[in-house]
Amino acid sequence: MATSEPRATGEEQDPNAANLRPPSGTYEYAWMHGCTRKLGMKICGFLQKNNSLEERGRLAGQKNLLSCDNSDRDSRYRRTETDFSNLFARDLLPAKNGEEPTIQFLLEVVEILTNYIKKTFDRSTKVLDFHHPHQLLEGMEGFNLELSDQPESLEQILVDCRDTLKYGIRTGHPRFFNQLSSGLDIIGLAGEWLTSTANTNMFTYEIAPVFVLMEQLTLKKMREMIGWPGGEGDGLFSPGGAISNMYSVMIARYKYFPEVKTKGMSAAPRLVLFTSEHSHYSIKKAGAALGFGSDNVILLSTDERGRVIPADLEAKIIDAKQKGYVPLFVNATAGSTVYGAFDPINEIADICEKYNLWLHVDGAWGGGLLMSRKHRHKLNGVERANSVTWNPHKMMGVPLQCSAILVREKGILAGCNSMCAGYLFQPDKQYDVTYDTGDKAIQCGRHVDIFKFWLMWKAKGTIGFEQHIDKCLDLSQYLYNKIKNREGFQMVFDGVPQHTNVCFWYIPPSLRGMPDSDERREKLHRVAPKIKAMMMESGTTMVGYQPQGNKVNFFRMVVSNPAATQSDIDFLIDEIERMGQDL
Amino acid sequence: MATSEPRATGEEQDPNAANLRPPSGTYEYAWMHGCTRKLGMKICGFLQKNNSLEERGRLAGQKNLLSCDNSDRDSRYRRTETDFSNLFARDLLPAKNGEEPTIQFLLEVVEILTNYIKKTFDRSTKVLDFHHPHQLLEGMEGFNLELSDQPESLEQILVDCRDTLKYGIRTGHPRFFNQLSSGLDIIGLAGEWLTSTANTNMFTYEIAPVFVLMEQLTLKKMREMIGWPGGEGDGLFSPGGAISNMYSVMIARYKYFPEVKTKGMSAAPRLVLFTSEHSHYSIKKAGAALGFGSDNVILLSTDERGRVIPADLEAKIIDAKQKGYVPLFVNATAGSTVYGAFDPINEIADICEKYNLWLHVDGAWGGGLLMSRKHRHKLNGVERANSVTWNPHKMMGVPLQCSAILVREKGILAGCNSMCAGYLFQPDKQYDVTYDTGDKAIQCGRHVDIFKFWLMWKAKGTIGFEQHIDKCLDLSQYLYNKIKNREGFQMVFDGVPQHTNVCFWYIPPSLRGMPDSDERREKLHRVAPKIKAMMMESGTTMVGYQPQGNKVNFFRMVVSNPAATQSDIDFLIDEIERMGQDL
Repeated sequence: MATSEPRATGEEQDPNAANLRPPSGTYEYAWMHGCTRKLGMKICGFLQKNNSLEERGRLAGQKNLLSCDNSDRDSRYRRTETDFSNLFARDLLPAKNGEEPTIQFLLEVVEILTNYIKKTFDRSTKVLDFHHPHQLLEGMEGFNLELSDQPESLEQILVDCRDTLKYGIRTGHPRFFNQLSSGLDIIGLAGEWLTSTANTNMFTYEIAPVFVLMEQLTLKKMREMIGWPGGEGDGLFSPGGAISNMYSVMIARYKYFPEVKTKGMSAAPRLVLFTSEHSHYSIKKAGAALGFGSDNVILLSTDERGRVIPADLEAKIIDAKQKGYVPLFVNATAGSTVYGAFDPINEIADICEKYNLWLHVDGAWGGGLLMSRKHRHKLNGVERANSVTWNPHKMMGVPLQCSAILVREKGILAGCNSMCAGYLFQPDKQYDVTYDTGDKAIQCGRHVDIFKFWLMWKAKGTIGFEQHIDKCLDLSQYLYNKIKNREGFQMVFDGVPQHTNVCFWYIPPSLRGMPDSDERREKLHRVAPKIKAMMMESGTTMVGYQPQGNKVNFFRMVVSNPAATQSDIDFLIDEIERMGQDL
Repeated sequence: MATSEPRATGEEQDPNAANLRPPSGTYEYAWMHGCTRKLGMKICGFLQKNNSLEERGRLAGQKNLLSCDNSDRDSRYRRTETDFSNLFARDLLPAKNGEEPTIQFLLEVVEILTNYIKKTFDRSTKVLDFHHPHQLLEGMEGFNLELSDQPESLEQILVDCRDTLKYGIRTGHPRFFNQLSSGLDIIGLAGEWLTSTANTNMFTYEIAPVFVLMEQLTLKKMREMIGWPGGEGDGLFSPGGAISNMYSVMIARYKYFPEVKTKGMSAAPRLVLFTSEHSHYSIKKAGAALGFGSDNVILLSTDERGRVIPADLEAKIIDAKQKGYVPLFVNATAGSTVYGAFDPINEIADICEKYNLWLHVDGAWGGGLLMSRKHRHKLNGVERANSVTWNPHKMMGVPLQCSAILVREKGILAGCNSMCAGYLFQPDKQYDVTYDTGDKAIQCGRHVDIFKFWLMWKAKGTIGFEQHIDKCLDLSQYLYNKIKNREGFQMVFDGVPQHTNVCFWYIPPSLRGMPDSDERREKLHRVAPKIKAMMMESGTTMVGYQPQGNKVNFFRMVVSNPAATQSDIDFLIDEIERMGQDL
């Protein structure tokens, strides 16, 4: 709560009154360039005069070294000497005379960001500079996380920006392998910068005409990839795969028991959902949240590679029916989180058809393989699904967040979710209001997640995504081939991985001769966490580990970063061996 | 599906091989500036040599005009003449020699964005350049939304960026009043640019150490503002107010009927929720989604100002109990969407205590008023709530998306939502894993929404937010005072608005003498849509309209944009009169 006196500004009558302190630099130079856009190769160094500065007679240095005839072009800004220590947020636009400090501040931020980007791709840079929570909370030199009543200068804000990046993680670093989402796509990044500058909302065509249409066209393209005839169907971008999966359960329930929307779960029999024991936990979370209960999310057994055993599904359906439950929904995972396993969709689809169940394919991680002619067969049968989750922010390298829920039946999303709020969705608008998609969502405001993805697709083409995916899978096979028979490494499952997930134990020399026993298992369980801790302390690379079922902690390597090369894979192996040899 | 041949690259062995076509410009100029960061006022025009360019002997023009001794600083980039028509996404980082085209491309994008920003605050720029969906879908000159197999050049990508902005809506324009979220905060924007460059995920401290701590500290600060002792409690940033409200219902259910998490809604009696007939539709959506059924979301009557009548709540609780339902949850709205009404929280809290119900305050729109000493009394009693939704992306001008769900009881979010996925949340990490907050969420991956808000708070201080809020409320009172007795304007409800919402009809001269009748109502119902259509066609301003209950279409004016001034309010009134006079 604000406890200090508001700053006396004397500006009450003119809320945009100037607070500008003139930039104090005396040297100002021209930022010159050529203009190429739509002008082909016309060489043209164009220097737009900055009127507001010139009026105050503060211009110095070179200007108008070259002239340019395209005076209808946007202004070009010059970088000037600016003292940010005496400037504050209130001096930026919309403040009067705020344009110049605004541009200078943003250019300074961009310089911080471009330097960060450059270093992110430089292997001599650390992946992270690890600090414990208490260290960061106590405050590093010049970096204090606490918020206060009084404003900080823009100079401090710029320092905060640098420090935030300094103490963070470089998820785009070629040696960051910790998550399914990694990499820093430059086109996607530009798309995000533009998206945040446009700062709008997806619920109506009225305030997001271009983005709404981009979403529509891109979803159609994705449905074509899935194989639904003519790309017909429905869909939305949602805030992530867990929410997309939640949508699938909601829609399935609405399809079979539409009265639940108004009457609640008491209007339905006791419903059960089926998903693999290797599937993402969001299916269980959805079951809990939506009122099914997590116990009614029945886990299916898998083979040694983590793929659902279809016969187990059928047995559990029959069992549930015998117990008086009503089977509703089956989730088939296309690319499981840990093993990267693809459930056999066609065999599962046969069972779903036989028992009239909704088939959802969770392709959050594996959906991207649909872009690859070489690998899309792993999702054979996906065209038989009723709904599909597909996260371009994972395997396709799109910046976070970008997840789609795709539905085969048109109109069912709106049927399930619409509440027809009059204040948002007016039927008497002057344009075709079928483009107002907001009422299909469980959200009201919805972030624009489409533009970066659309822009990447434009810039790479379908073949660009295909090359990216094929390359990542090649790299993981390279890793697999290198370690499958290597001393000190043991694969968690046999055979070439289906996705880029390579799961393995590193066995330190001290454990290599030891026969299997509880003691060995306990010791092995502690190896991966120790190596991971060393990696983070040294900051050289990052890879995930976890237990699974009765298997003790093992490394899960994933490749989704286009910056990674074979040398980075080699480096990872060497690091693990170096750090683990004395454990 | 990709149908064309993959581009033959011959790069299979070196996935980062160069594809760089040398920039074709022959004129290159220096981008000069002074360095001020941490160096105080040292004047220092610094030109970093660009090695990769220099190696190729392509450097021309001025360089090293001034020297600079701070060689440990980050590199400074110069803008160069770059022909983007011959460059593609594959030429950018991580491609070999990709650094220079990457920087040049990003600088070009930034130029597009800074020009957009400048024009957004310029009242001579249109708010929008309206086109119907079919027009944009057919393709405007040079702007084609369709995606293809083959990549586009970076020049085309830059054109696409310009055109996306051109055909979009300027939500930061001083005359954009269409939504609760408006304005373009420069600090928030810089925060978003940094967030997307960092491109990480909130689920663990491991990959978002700084952001996780910022979230924790900021949520605590918000809880202090609410008035919970010591700022204790729990919370999360979620993808929007609707999801935050959904959390509140989930947590309430978990608090009273924890077995629903595992057993489903059949483990609970028939539960009912209460919310105002003026409340946001997300409460009903949550009721439908979570298995209560939208019919079991009981709507409360309001007074003429749209505020819940507490006696009606108590009567409906008693009625529900008599019918065998179990009242669970009451939502009090702090700032309703249309009227901007604040429900009387204290009186509602008394009833909730009496009947042992969960009290949620939906302050998505009105929560920001807690930052204002002058206006926070409108939320008196909020400290008695069990949970609060508060969207900084609305009244506080933070870029979309930024919504918080705040909870008084610590640990209940995790209790409600955790599924303890071993692959994400390993208890044997080297740091304090209580900072791994992901399992509290219904999401897995969660976008970083905190940084822009934290940075704005740093830059403005609490008093900066307070000034912003007080100013917006002053402006709406200015509008109210101007039109309350003006000919041709009729207020939808009497009295000074509680929030910035000003609801009014414009009565064209043709209807002014007409007695109330169905015919007049029908005609009046069509006035606002017609004026709105004219506004959009002319692009001069935008304001929302809607019907409410038995009231025909009226304008809902809201002010949350710090760029708006009294002159913009005057302009809006004039535009409505000008456009509506002949209707």
